[in-house]
Amino acid sequence: MKKWVACSGVLVCLLSFAGWRASHAEDTKTDQFSPYVSADGSIERPANFRTEFVHMGSWFVPEGDASGFHDVYTQQSTVEAFRETGQFPDGAVLVKELRAATAGNYTTGPNVAYANDQLKQWFVMVKDAKGRFPDHPLWGQGWGWALFKPDAPSKNVATNYETDCLGCHVPAQSRDWVYSEAYPTLKK
Amino acid sequence: MKKWVACSGVLVCLLSFAGWRASHAEDTKTDQFSPYVSADGSIERPANFRTEFVHMGSWFVPEGDASGFHDVYTQQSTVEAFRETGQFPDGAVLVKELRAATAGNYTTGPNVAYANDQLKQWFVMVKDAKGRFPDHPLWGQGWGWALFKPDAPSKNVATNYETDCLGCHVPAQSRDWVYSEAYPTLKK
Repeated sequence: MKKWVACSGVLVCLLSFAGWRASHAEDTKTDQFSPYVSADGSIERPANFRTEFVHMGSWFVPEGDASGFHDVYTQQSTVEAFRETGQFPDGAVLVKELRAATAGNYTTGPNVAYANDQLKQWFVMVKDAKGRFPDHPLWGQGWGWALFKPDAPSKNVATNYETDCLGCHVPAQSRDWVYSEAYPTLKK
Repeated sequence: MKKWVACSGVLVCLLSFAGWRASHAEDTKTDQFSPYVSADGSIERPANFRTEFVHMGSWFVPEGDASGFHDVYTQQSTVEAFRETGQFPDGAVLVKELRAATAGNYTTGPNVAYANDQLKQWFVMVKDAKGRFPDHPLWGQGWGWALFKPDAPSKNVATNYETDCLGCHVPAQSRDWVYSEAYPTLKK
């Protein structure tokens, strides 16, 4: 019995160490503000957002350069916080993926559209409630702004958020620059 | 030190018991095949699928009774299994939520549509690779079939899958009755 108890002691010690390591790793990330933002303000596209993030909602754009499906995703914790406060919390990451649409005749009706495999681009916004990067051309109005293209999906091709990104968001300025009417998941 | 070790022993004992309880609960669910299927074959609509399931993809149906957005969700484990095998695994749950669409003019273009708050219905399919309910009118062709309406969201209003559900799926029969072309998330 004594031996078992001692053995358990060692085990609990190992478990505690594993727990400390896990929480310490989390702390390090918190120090860096976001796992998708480096110390110099560079923004990374979350790699597995389609399986690890929550779907906020989608847009269907019938024509023009932006035609197709715009599927929008965020972290589960962001949805929980938004439902509670009506605001995007510090560190919220929004990913909008654009794919071209294919239309066909289905049993649900004619001209039914769905997102096909042709990826067009990804928009990423990261909420920064503390103005962490005041002199950075891709941070402002409470957000970090990024645009990624399929030919180099890890390179943010936006260079200045005011000229590259903000214009399209002006009508949503009063809602923290996000067209939240399209996102049923954000509602309680 | 001895006291601490003994104390840790008790703690590890409690932790082990908690672990056993958790895994036992999981076993019970497995015995019942699916947390969304009762022993008599009744199918329940997963309550929090928009935040707990993965978005497979969406359809946009421009007109008719089924017009609006059809957002389709499944478990993360189903996505992983499908990417590996190209098949829906036993226990896969597919939820298709229909919401009416609103269209407006946005900076992305005219007539841009998004899913509004008017919920129309939910379709639920549960993969049953073992023919568990051979005499049940809502189970067949390798799936359980269910339809829920917003006025009574916990009541499956389908009564016979062959007359209520299967007709619309016939064109997708060769792909296990699912129109998988619309689901980018299922691709590797």
